[in-house]
Amino acid sequence: MTTVTIGIDVGGTKIAAAAVDADGSLIARSQVPTESDDQNSIVAAIVKVSHEMKAAAPAARAIGVGAAALVDHESGTILWAPNLSYKDLHLRALLQDRVGLPVAVDNDANVAALAEAIHGAGKGAAHQATVTVGTGIGAGFVLDGKLYRGAHGLGGEPGHMIVVPDGPMCTCGNRGCWEAVASGRAIGRVARERVEGGAGADLLAAAGGDVAAITGEAVGDAAVAGDAFARDVVASVGRMLGIGLANLVNLLDPALLVVGGGAAAGTGELLLGPARTAMAAHIVGASWRPPVPVLPAALGNDAGVVGAAILARELAGSG
Amino acid sequence: MTTVTIGIDVGGTKIAAAAVDADGSLIARSQVPTESDDQNSIVAAIVKVSHEMKAAAPAARAIGVGAAALVDHESGTILWAPNLSYKDLHLRALLQDRVGLPVAVDNDANVAALAEAIHGAGKGAAHQATVTVGTGIGAGFVLDGKLYRGAHGLGGEPGHMIVVPDGPMCTCGNRGCWEAVASGRAIGRVARERVEGGAGADLLAAAGGDVAAITGEAVGDAAVAGDAFARDVVASVGRMLGIGLANLVNLLDPALLVVGGGAAAGTGELLLGPARTAMAAHIVGASWRPPVPVLPAALGNDAGVVGAAILARELAGSG
Repeated sequence: MTTVTIGIDVGGTKIAAAAVDADGSLIARSQVPTESDDQNSIVAAIVKVSHEMKAAAPAARAIGVGAAALVDHESGTILWAPNLSYKDLHLRALLQDRVGLPVAVDNDANVAALAEAIHGAGKGAAHQATVTVGTGIGAGFVLDGKLYRGAHGLGGEPGHMIVVPDGPMCTCGNRGCWEAVASGRAIGRVARERVEGGAGADLLAAAGGDVAAITGEAVGDAAVAGDAFARDVVASVGRMLGIGLANLVNLLDPALLVVGGGAAAGTGELLLGPARTAMAAHIVGASWRPPVPVLPAALGNDAGVVGAAILARELAGSG
Repeated sequence: MTTVTIGIDVGGTKIAAAAVDADGSLIARSQVPTESDDQNSIVAAIVKVSHEMKAAAPAARAIGVGAAALVDHESGTILWAPNLSYKDLHLRALLQDRVGLPVAVDNDANVAALAEAIHGAGKGAAHQATVTVGTGIGAGFVLDGKLYRGAHGLGGEPGHMIVVPDGPMCTCGNRGCWEAVASGRAIGRVARERVEGGAGADLLAAAGGDVAAITGEAVGDAAVAGDAFARDVVASVGRMLGIGLANLVNLLDPALLVVGGGAAAGTGELLLGPARTAMAAHIVGASWRPPVPVLPAALGNDAGVVGAAILARELAGSG
């Protein structure tokens, strides 16, 4: 008998749910918007989609939740989220009580890494990391075949490793974090700095002459459309992405790395190509290890629900 | 019955051996110099001390070797060492053949981490890293209670993570590696740079007026003796040490960190104090995790033989 579980992806703008079988295929799915200003509404929405999935897949044996938040996996509690109102939310207890299935909760980057490791680009490798390059940088590490959580459930946060001491300010309050120099936000910042220096006239014109209106997404789109200035900006940020990837290789010695997230998906090889080159140049002992492939994520927006469903399989007792 | 094993520490200048009981106590020990220009002499010396330890502790059931080298643990092969002549040395097969006990081989930083985790400063913590600050920076990670080796046995090399892109040249050929800015060698370099800038007259005089003769060790000694310039240099390097330690915390979420090695032992709190302060300032989510203690290594020069003996316990079947 194949194990079916429910995966729920709680993001800043939407809550997605799916019933997922043991192959990672979606049997049913549902989606509702996230009410960011009301914790009770968010819980009610999660309960609602859980019931929908339970009705669509009566064989489902457990629920996994991946949330864009700081999560205590042990207790199933959402501690804090940057864009949402909830705080110290005992989601596991609430959901178990209201839906009647065992529940596991983890952060979105960890469940995305699980999804890519089991059913996606990293399938088959015991040691790997999935790095999610969006507005910021998230990550999840799968080491020795298991999601790595660390001593306090806070492992796998390379987005805030310092790669440029006294560098650009990060949203975390420090300077020079990897996500401050290698994320979608960094693409926007680097472009704006160079435009202020007099370059990138086309990009400035496209932003209506307002430097502050130049976003990382607009730069990525212009790069894809062939704009040379934008391509150079994306390549510069790609090199910093590659330096951080090399740090992961030097520390973790993974068999492969998976890179996903909106900024990576939106720029593709324009970002990943320079990242791979810079990574290769900064790996120690390169002559004694096989090349470490840097693979684009394979599951796209479904990584959240699929990974959350994998998380739930541990509770269901089999994969 | 308590398990006794033999631990051998193969360094650039000496080969130390000990018979070690299950408590980590040394029952017998021996030491010979390393003949750096002759692989056969090194092997003969390792065989000699192994026989000595086997004679001193007939109950010894296995041999562990920690080598200052790039080691393939799986095959028990020393691939390469910076200061010694050996290359592709199948030490496990050779030793097993000549001494008649099962043999395990790993690199010196990994076995030192094992020693500190099991019998030293990190005793009792499932997630920890031991960072060895000497001329360079070595490290070993103990994650989920086990030595972490990675996909190709090359895990745990944070010494070459890039923390200052385009920074000072490292011996590995890259620029801005952690060990280029936070090791004993960095203490010497920073002091020489500042002396060339006109500071540190006392240190320059002590070096006979020759800037190039100012070593990291001399700076450390002057700092311990109270020299304000030297203390400032050590503190600067300590801050870079702390930034790298913060990176380890952000990635691995350890319960604690252990710092050993000659440069750390020689400067003590003058290096570790600023490192702790800088580390604390660069940890993400600090309000959600307990403080991460940075502890001085407890086993000193014995970490190598004790850790190698622990490595051998796996082969002996019990601890």
